Amino acid sequence: MKKRINVAILGAAGVLGQRFIERLENHPTFEMVALADVMVGKRYEDATKWRLGNRIPSKVKDMKIVAGDSFSKNEIDVVFSALPGGIAGKIELDLAKKGFFIISKASDHRMEEDVPLIIPEVNAEHLSLIEEQRKKRGWDGAIVTDPNCSTTIMAVSLKPLWDNFGIERVAVSTMQSISGAGYPGVQSLDIFENVIPYIAGEEEKMIIETKKLFGDAKRPADLRVSASCSRVGTIDGHLEVVFVETSKKADPDEARKAFEQLKGLDYPSAPKEPIIVRDELDRPQTRLDRDAGDGMSVVLGRIRKDEALGLTYVVLGHNTIRGGAGGAILVGELCHGKGYI
Amino acid sequence: MKKRINVAILGAAGVLGQRFIERLENHPTFEMVALADVMVGKRYEDATKWRLGNRIPSKVKDMKIVAGDSFSKNEIDVVFSALPGGIAGKIELDLAKKGFFIISKASDHRMEEDVPLIIPEVNAEHLSLIEEQRKKRGWDGAIVTDPNCSTTIMAVSLKPLWDNFGIERVAVSTMQSISGAGYPGVQSLDIFENVIPYIAGEEEKMIIETKKLFGDAKRPADLRVSASCSRVGTIDGHLEVVFVETSKKADPDEARKAFEQLKGLDYPSAPKEPIIVRDELDRPQTRLDRDAGDGMSVVLGRIRKDEALGLTYVVLGHNTIRGGAGGAILVGELCHGKGYI
Amino acid sequence: MKKRINVAILGAAGVLGQRFIERLENHPTFEMVALADVMVGKRYEDATKWRLGNRIPSKVKDMKIVAGDSFSKNEIDVVFSALPGGIAGKIELDLAKKGFFIISKASDHRMEEDVPLIIPEVNAEHLSLIEEQRKKRGWDGAIVTDPNCSTTIMAVSLKPLWDNFGIERVAVSTMQSISGAGYPGVQSLDIFENVIPYIAGEEEKMIIETKKLFGDAKRPADLRVSASCSRVGTIDGHLEVVFVETSKKADPDEARKAFEQLKGLDYPSAPKEPIIVRDELDRPQTRLDRDAGDGMSVVLGRIRKDEALGLTYVVLGHNTIRGGAGGAILVGELCHGKGYI
Amino acid sequence: MKKRINVAILGAAGVLGQRFIERLENHPTFEMVALADVMVGKRYEDATKWRLGNRIPSKVKDMKIVAGDSFSKNEIDVVFSALPGGIAGKIELDLAKKGFFIISKASDHRMEEDVPLIIPEVNAEHLSLIEEQRKKRGWDGAIVTDPNCSTTIMAVSLKPLWDNFGIERVAVSTMQSISGAGYPGVQSLDIFENVIPYIAGEEEKMIIETKKLFGDAKRPADLRVSASCSRVGTIDGHLEVVFVETSKKADPDEARKAFEQLKGLDYPSAPKEPIIVRDELDRPQTRLDRDAGDGMSVVLGRIRKDEALGLTYVVLGHNTIRGGAGGAILVGELCHGKGYI
Repeated sequence: MKKRINVAILGAAGVLGQRFIERLENHPTFEMVALADVMVGKRYEDATKWRLGNRIPSKVKDMKIVAGDSFSKNEIDVVFSALPGGIAGKIELDLAKKGFFIISKASDHRMEEDVPLIIPEVNAEHLSLIEEQRKKRGWDGAIVTDPNCSTTIMAVSLKPLWDNFGIERVAVSTMQSISGAGYPGVQSLDIFENVIPYIAGEEEKMIIETKKLFGDAKRPADLRVSASCSRVGTIDGHLEVVFVETSKKADPDEARKAFEQLKGLDYPSAPKEPIIVRDELDRPQTRLDRDAGDGMSVVLGRIRKDEALGLTYVVLGHNTIRGGAGGAILVGELCHGKGYI
Repeated sequence: MKKRINVAILGAAGVLGQRFIERLENHPTFEMVALADVMVGKRYEDATKWRLGNRIPSKVKDMKIVAGDSFSKNEIDVVFSALPGGIAGKIELDLAKKGFFIISKASDHRMEEDVPLIIPEVNAEHLSLIEEQRKKRGWDGAIVTDPNCSTTIMAVSLKPLWDNFGIERVAVSTMQSISGAGYPGVQSLDIFENVIPYIAGEEEKMIIETKKLFGDAKRPADLRVSASCSRVGTIDGHLEVVFVETSKKADPDEARKAFEQLKGLDYPSAPKEPIIVRDELDRPQTRLDRDAGDGMSVVLGRIRKDEALGLTYVVLGHNTIRGGAGGAILVGELCHGKGYI
Repeated sequence: MKKRINVAILGAAGVLGQRFIERLENHPTFEMVALADVMVGKRYEDATKWRLGNRIPSKVKDMKIVAGDSFSKNEIDVVFSALPGGIAGKIELDLAKKGFFIISKASDHRMEEDVPLIIPEVNAEHLSLIEEQRKKRGWDGAIVTDPNCSTTIMAVSLKPLWDNFGIERVAVSTMQSISGAGYPGVQSLDIFENVIPYIAGEEEKMIIETKKLFGDAKRPADLRVSASCSRVGTIDGHLEVVFVETSKKADPDEARKAFEQLKGLDYPSAPKEPIIVRDELDRPQTRLDRDAGDGMSVVLGRIRKDEALGLTYVVLGHNTIRGGAGGAILVGELCHGKGYI
Repeated sequence: MKKRINVAILGAAGVLGQRFIERLENHPTFEMVALADVMVGKRYEDATKWRLGNRIPSKVKDMKIVAGDSFSKNEIDVVFSALPGGIAGKIELDLAKKGFFIISKASDHRMEEDVPLIIPEVNAEHLSLIEEQRKKRGWDGAIVTDPNCSTTIMAVSLKPLWDNFGIERVAVSTMQSISGAGYPGVQSLDIFENVIPYIAGEEEKMIIETKKLFGDAKRPADLRVSASCSRVGTIDGHLEVVFVETSKKADPDEARKAFEQLKGLDYPSAPKEPIIVRDELDRPQTRLDRDAGDGMSVVLGRIRKDEALGLTYVVLGHNTIRGGAGGAILVGELCHGKGYI
């Protein structure tokens, strides 16, 4: 296992790219060696408008933006893709063909049969698809994906229920932050003092990705999922109200115990507690809880009996950390730990 | 049927009381003759801080605040109660005993067996409980209630489903505005850039009131309801995501037709269209749609098939108009139209 | 004087264009006969996303979008321009050459020497520049402008001080709403829970336009103006803190009297009180006061003595009504009343 | 000089008290040994609702709340007072009489002639008043104060201008966050989508405190200050637009240089750069810049020439850190460094 892994970031100047940089700045294993985006040749500081606080990290300030297709296998071990869906697909494919190991936040390849869709605490075993992918596609590279932010947050919370009780049906209503739409994303005139009960493509992703995560690597799990996704006026953090029917009856106390027992993994970005259960009546709250576990825990509360489906709870996660750059980096750490990198 | 009805408002200086005044200012039938609140003797303008726009209506500016227990039967035909739950109960009881006809927004008497809980478009026939109430309690007065704001908005939308398909189960996730908490209500430090996934007492009300509304006057309806109520950063308007299992299968088109066919009533405050269906993907929206039908219509959209329960949609209503003063005034108009007043 | 005036709107599908339509829908004199924008041939409803409430006015829903250069002098008496600065200049010029009477909200021609920049309550007499403009430019048409929204709101408040005491220096700090930036305007990620202390071009406009307004038609007034413009998280309404040094000493009571005595004009869009003075310590407030006088009054408060310049007050106006479509329509009414149209 | 200083916090359960705890949790010199508030005997965790993030610091969680009048001189070296103005005065006086060294954020004693009002980078030399205070009052204790949050932020920015050019007049317009009002503070219904152009007492404080800070210890400085304070919808951070007339002309470049040259002090809480100058047109911004220098720097931008007073700029600081607990702790560090503690 290599000690230091050289990584490149695709889409480094976007909001998601900035989160990758922020989380990789002092990473013990991954070393940022290349930042790719469209403004090739510019200093990073001149190519982006830093939105994550007072000042751009000094480490990347003077790095020159490069083109993704100029990456050299000698210099780069892993490519994190923060590209938008639609654009990401082809670029990732070209790099994988050249032998690069891609970990992508984009949705383009997620649902392909031989592409692992991974949340380390949920379905690490799906990584075995990599071998099949390489054989089938005839390449040395790899494309590994992690799910949509809303899916990730819910799936982490469903994992202990799935393992302990089985799941028949899930109905979820999300309240998602504006940072989920990237930049430029939601116009202020649209979302100020408002709720928009629709996010394009989000509900479909929550439905199909959840089934892939809980299936075996190749067949979606047999559960029924319904999602209704809303945008609300918060900056970061997606809060989700989950109604769930378990196969074996789960009363709130049993569910609570199961949630708390979900094990944290032993990787740098893995939170000690993947699920933090709060017993106060009014938690989790978006602003107060999104940074729990350095943004990598989901915070869960209001576990209660439910007349309609049996069990209800509320779960919150940081969409651009756990559901974004942090989640993808954790997938990278898992791939490294398991010897794929 | 009297042409002009003299009305009094209990709790006239609160936010809900202000809404009553705003909606009664130019009412064709109801004439405000008494404003009751704690600061007895003060001019209304000095007793309240007007929050509904630039200036306090000139009609009430100089009216003197009176005490509720000083009401005279000669002067007052109907009493609208905008008192907070907990305080309202005894005061309303005392007035009913004295023979006053009370229409109350407070929750205190809502669930009593002989007290009608009315949404005119949903269960006007429950008004017949008034006779039973009078007989049983031995008074000439009456206490009539209307439901909690969140219940009202959902129940209007459920009515056509109930009538056309029957309802087995409902799971609802609400996103409610800060005005729902009254004044002083939610602290800005608590709700700014935040979602609070809990509103005390709200979920229980949605569950039990819905069953009473769709039951016959004395027995709750046999349906399963689950509610999860969240406070979001909007000023007015409650948006609700509803997952519903109908008894007879209802596909989205059939449901849409049923929603649109719910008839408007012929009262001054009744909206022509109790339910306005919007076909755009991203409607209803809180800020854009809460004032539809002068705040008395609910706006409904995103009707779609649902894997978990069968049917999903989003409904929005104005919490302090349809779900507040406007709804109660409409109940008053119904009582008047039906000869109870 | 013609009884009915046919008007066209340039930029009808933008946010400002929508405000024009909203304010002209039931106008007693001006009849909308043409809506111009880029999506020529489309029904208005399909060419725009209506942002001013629940539904698009039925009057314009089915009107077909036309091209500005297809306007016919037989059909159109007045053209209101809601075009963005930069684009407006040439289009307005071409139409004026063809003989159209243009009233423009765009900044392009505002500072030209022979173009009147008008606030009816402030400098109606500057309209006389029209004759000079026609002579000089050799056309029958006309270009009349009204100032930037922030300038308008401040200038209305300065008018009584200018007339009664003279003004030496003004320092103004504005807190402007997001609707001032049009649509798409400010990204929500930029302005949520934030203040941005800069609005491109705004400060320069406040400085030079104020001098033109208070000058004689051809020479800027001799006063010193300093402006610092900030964007805050409100939807509509610009609030301005004004520090002013008058030539003749004005104590707060005298200033108050002068503010209140500014006369309203006798036109359909003219507010009875151009300046509404509020004596409460905490008024004007953006959300509560922006709609005063149907959005055409400015609301002024907190008049007090000031150690630095002598007099301080706070003034608020509706940026897209008084400072936008409403202001321009009032200019149109003035032009009509004075016989220019 | 003692290595470890035992400190107590008065008003430990309030929002400001929480900030003290957050900033003292890992302090190299100050050790929290007593938390005083009204709920005497309760565990700290049960006595407060923690508002500064996910979880209450483990160090204080189980500490028992004590009464301020039970403090023992053997155990406590310094008392930080986070009490509200009005309540603080007498309690602080009683403790000073008993010999305690008080550093107070409350306004009650700020303007007393023998009480130092200190910003370490601005007027550290005023600490010498302590001796006079002790002599005059006949006590061994001391009361040292630091200014109101808005004053502090402005005064840090004025310091280099005062030293290099002299100051004749200042007009300041502030845009202050809701956390400035404490908890419970501003109601959400009051401030949502709104600006309130008034904060009780704030303007007077800015005027008189600024003069005391730049005076010699006993006489206010001779400069004219005018302030207009507004509440806007941000959580933390006060942004201030400053118009200033210097005695000696200061062009923007000279001012910029002076701002940057203000020296940081060598104390644990002292920011390396007390003033961070940003050259981007649109900085400082409240959300992006309030945490600069760990919340202890002020961020300054938009330095420009001004027609009215000569020089204008925008300055931002964190109101509950630099202008709150952080500022008071820095005063404590200064007192310790200078041997007063």
